[in-house]
Amino acid sequence: MVQLSKPRVIIVGGGFGGLACAKTLKNARFDVVLIDRTNHHVFQPLLYQVAVSALSPGDIGIPLRSILRNYHNTQVIMDEVQSVELSEHKLLLADGDLNYDYLVLAPGARHSYFGNPQWEELAPGLKSLRDAIHIRERMLLSFETAERYYHTSDSKKYLTFVIVGGGPTGVELAGAIAEIGRKTLLPDYPILSADDIRVILIEAHERLLSSYSQKQSEYTLETLEKIGVEIILNTRVKTVLENKVITNNDEEIETVNVIWAAGNKASPLIRTLGIEVNHSGCALVQPDLSVPGYPNVFVIGDAAHLIDVNGVEAPAVAPTAIQQGIYVAKLIKSRKIPSQRKSFAYKDKGNMATIGRLKAVAMFGKLRFTGFTAWFMWCFIHILFLINFRNRLRVMVEWFWFYITRQPGARLIVQKEMKMKEKEE
Amino acid sequence: MVQLSKPRVIIVGGGFGGLACAKTLKNARFDVVLIDRTNHHVFQPLLYQVAVSALSPGDIGIPLRSILRNYHNTQVIMDEVQSVELSEHKLLLADGDLNYDYLVLAPGARHSYFGNPQWEELAPGLKSLRDAIHIRERMLLSFETAERYYHTSDSKKYLTFVIVGGGPTGVELAGAIAEIGRKTLLPDYPILSADDIRVILIEAHERLLSSYSQKQSEYTLETLEKIGVEIILNTRVKTVLENKVITNNDEEIETVNVIWAAGNKASPLIRTLGIEVNHSGCALVQPDLSVPGYPNVFVIGDAAHLIDVNGVEAPAVAPTAIQQGIYVAKLIKSRKIPSQRKSFAYKDKGNMATIGRLKAVAMFGKLRFTGFTAWFMWCFIHILFLINFRNRLRVMVEWFWFYITRQPGARLIVQKEMKMKEKEE
Repeated sequence: MVQLSKPRVIIVGGGFGGLACAKTLKNARFDVVLIDRTNHHVFQPLLYQVAVSALSPGDIGIPLRSILRNYHNTQVIMDEVQSVELSEHKLLLADGDLNYDYLVLAPGARHSYFGNPQWEELAPGLKSLRDAIHIRERMLLSFETAERYYHTSDSKKYLTFVIVGGGPTGVELAGAIAEIGRKTLLPDYPILSADDIRVILIEAHERLLSSYSQKQSEYTLETLEKIGVEIILNTRVKTVLENKVITNNDEEIETVNVIWAAGNKASPLIRTLGIEVNHSGCALVQPDLSVPGYPNVFVIGDAAHLIDVNGVEAPAVAPTAIQQGIYVAKLIKSRKIPSQRKSFAYKDKGNMATIGRLKAVAMFGKLRFTGFTAWFMWCFIHILFLINFRNRLRVMVEWFWFYITRQPGARLIVQKEMKMKEKEE
Repeated sequence: MVQLSKPRVIIVGGGFGGLACAKTLKNARFDVVLIDRTNHHVFQPLLYQVAVSALSPGDIGIPLRSILRNYHNTQVIMDEVQSVELSEHKLLLADGDLNYDYLVLAPGARHSYFGNPQWEELAPGLKSLRDAIHIRERMLLSFETAERYYHTSDSKKYLTFVIVGGGPTGVELAGAIAEIGRKTLLPDYPILSADDIRVILIEAHERLLSSYSQKQSEYTLETLEKIGVEIILNTRVKTVLENKVITNNDEEIETVNVIWAAGNKASPLIRTLGIEVNHSGCALVQPDLSVPGYPNVFVIGDAAHLIDVNGVEAPAVAPTAIQQGIYVAKLIKSRKIPSQRKSFAYKDKGNMATIGRLKAVAMFGKLRFTGFTAWFMWCFIHILFLINFRNRLRVMVEWFWFYITRQPGARLIVQKEMKMKEKEE
């Protein structure tokens, strides 16, 4: 085990929250250990672009060690944390254990299948680069298979894409699949026609993007319909089977391509704390984001649930995680006793979602933007926030190329093989 | 099955040879079907750069359908050919069969383990993007594991890289691993030092790059030694085990990182022809590259063996495959009877191999180049021959960035996990 002398801060998770926390602790008199089960940070807001072949994994992923190379008080470990022993100030890793003085848990969330974990394999969600590559290769293979079996009765199911959940991820995926499917992929498959491709977005509530204004929801719906997305509102998915989806209205949709973008569930690590959680498994934290009874243990980001001092529930988005990571790092650096700590307050910096090429919705405080203006802001802000200059350059080149030629760069099937093959993977 | 009226040319394999053949048949009065088991062409000369994280898979792979999008007489099928029924003019695919009027087999080669197929898993070769990603992730994980277990006795085996075979692939890999390992990766692992990294190149013959001049072989050996590659000549690998390699001198090298770059073996598809093959399984073809007795069936590229009309044995490199693909396409278009066909003659356009950053060897006819001049030619020619403008742009940006910052872009572990984990993949 590594020998450390200064107080040790362990951060679990290299997403937006964990990384912001580690960066804010730069040069502080603490030994910082960042643990993640992958070796990279992912710029999650652009993950859907990897899933639809518009970007390469390397464009939005960057090794944690590179990001933190010049943080001399920080060590990166690639491992999975199995559980937290609060009373012993100890983490159990897949291999060995590690003591902490301060613990910041930022393990994020996975998708919630509402008690049907067996759906995960059939209807993957989009949280990691591996998920994105899985969805991408399945989509490309579906086009191959559809052309191959075009004259058989069930070829249509390969070209039917069902996205479950009409939040930002679902909207972005549906728009991108409709556009890339029809405009970019279709010309490569001469036998297929645009009418063969169905993109269906299913939302349980009465409108898409429920966190946005009514008007923006309507704009989103109209824009998606214009680019050929079928939208089914007020409808839940009752069953996901290998070749179809059944809704609560008993409508059956034949498809082999279901993507899950409905509901989150905190990392199972949170349950090992043995503290109270909400219905999504998120830790109910104190106003200073600490765990009740353990003022040196914090939960931040998607795995935490907090109604802040202003009565606002911080949404499960990157800015929340970043603000919380910085807040907790400053708290740790201040070494204040719990009663002196100022509570965390979420600052709403705005929200935005792309709907399709050149179209988006955005809101900043009371300001609302739609269409090209919002899309342009979206591009600008996402390029700006990409982790480092190199990735900015790559993504700019890639987008510039794509918007001119509609030829994205990452349409490769590398891991998967055609299903009819008898060889094992 | 697809209905075709014009004579049907089936090309098996979308590598350099198959693709050159399909392109040369553009607009000819044939229906062309290109079958490949992947959906993409790979620019193989740069595959080693993906293996060492210098390039992303999307930089050197491009979907076959995109390349051939405007070839209206050409159809692309993603499938694996199981066997050829010469007497019935028929191919058996994994799913169904297909008749041909002309058949061009360009299935390429895999590595030859000299009768020890069980070594393949421990000592992967480098022929496909999947191979390259496999090698890349294993290398990155080795660095993680070495740092994690640095204070245990067997940490060194994770940082020992053994490359078997001192031809161009072995030389390029050894040089790149030595440089990227020490200059790019090492600074990310503060516990490790340069001395911990060993890169060993084992060659069975008395010199590296035996197809180059004696002087160039010596230059290559000296340059590799300068950048820290240990070279063992006149030595064969007797056994590959999970944690070590044993040579024919009974020297044991502890390592978990063996890469195979020694010897090729033609695709097993060739054996299904039932014709005479050489010791590497390559089809012994007629002077017009056709199969004895079947003037409308051709084998080209790495799977063919031919001493041409000038007594030259065409080497197993991209230019050979391209020349043969074009030659066969023209032959088919000419519809000449076998006795009127002009024999294939290989034109040597030169050869080049990089040794490390800014160093290479090259030969064009009687001209020999070494060092920076050769390296500059190598860059220029490889950028020029990359499949399309988009990839050229990406690779140029990537190389420019890398040669300035030494920060390559693709150091992601996406598919593999740390070995100590008990969860299944």
